[in-house]
Amino acid sequence: MKKQIVTIAREFGSGGRAIGEAVAKKLGYAFYDKDIILKTAEETGLSSDYVEERGEAAPSGNIFSYLVMGRYHNGPTLEDELAAVQKKIILKAVEEGPCVIIGRASDYILKDRPDVLSVYIHGNEEDKAKRIMELYQKDEKEAKKMMYEMDKKRAINYKYLTDREWGEARYYSLCLNSSDLGYEKCVDLICSLCGE
Amino acid sequence: MKKQIVTIAREFGSGGRAIGEAVAKKLGYAFYDKDIILKTAEETGLSSDYVEERGEAAPSGNIFSYLVMGRYHNGPTLEDELAAVQKKIILKAVEEGPCVIIGRASDYILKDRPDVLSVYIHGNEEDKAKRIMELYQKDEKEAKKMMYEMDKKRAINYKYLTDREWGEARYYSLCLNSSDLGYEKCVDLICSLCGE
Repeated sequence: MKKQIVTIAREFGSGGRAIGEAVAKKLGYAFYDKDIILKTAEETGLSSDYVEERGEAAPSGNIFSYLVMGRYHNGPTLEDELAAVQKKIILKAVEEGPCVIIGRASDYILKDRPDVLSVYIHGNEEDKAKRIMELYQKDEKEAKKMMYEMDKKRAINYKYLTDREWGEARYYSLCLNSSDLGYEKCVDLICSLCGE
Repeated sequence: MKKQIVTIAREFGSGGRAIGEAVAKKLGYAFYDKDIILKTAEETGLSSDYVEERGEAAPSGNIFSYLVMGRYHNGPTLEDELAAVQKKIILKAVEEGPCVIIGRASDYILKDRPDVLSVYIHGNEEDKAKRIMELYQKDEKEAKKMMYEMDKKRAINYKYLTDREWGEARYYSLCLNSSDLGYEKCVDLICSLCGE
């Protein structure tokens, strides 16, 4: 079946977010990335509501203030709370119509929906480092450090939320090497699998 | 760049071989699967030549008779010898023109060629089991046993030959879930990346 929801997991520097944004634009789909999802969490008040529902003490009424507490206190960790809020936003987003969602373990959250195309985008190390150097004004050494740290963090978070290993092909409908195929071709391939 | 050589690694029952064969037919490319490569090894005499070159004792002048010896003797194992022969055949094949090669760690052997599209094909467990039941006249339990054993063997062989983990997206240009996308769409996607 043709897909109407696209989730994109991506290695840092692979251009996955940009590819997702181009797909959304080309198809006229809504677009949700990390910034949009976090902003929605704050604006909608879902975060503080959720915390209050659970009867947890919420120092400022905003889940983001929990970030300083670390994850090893009793009960749900901050990551659990934030993940729950993000999950709610993602589940609400897909009910509103066709969309592209970047990261946030959205592939896992939506894994049982047959209308979801789950995509993983990766790339060659040198190409990713070059992109990071340009985007963040870093030298090569700094860019590679950022790349390793960010991907390590993503892999740990993904494992924590899903009990899956980051980057295993079997969890995705489609995995693309953006260095090898080129960004434009990646956009075309994804779009060719979507529609009514 | 457009690709003229396609390597296909695949989970057992995912239809990867059939998809590769359809790609070769559609593009007019040569097609090499396990049977063809092993037959070529026997026919060309590359195997016995190779063993003689190395000064190894070759009981029957044919590398396949080594299979009974296991891998833990001194010097290159049978798997090493067979892998070397297959590598020669694959390297010769790609020099002869555009082709599709199934398995044999061909993605690793050809990893430094920019004209190679390396594909990994996987599928959902139930769909793969169903295909194995039909192809091999097995019941569900037997089919799943075959599936686990075959994929385990492939993973171990791949690790042995390449020091890579089987099924990690980063080693391939393109990974496809044939259950989710359908065989025909997999063929189309691969063909759309190949050509002059």
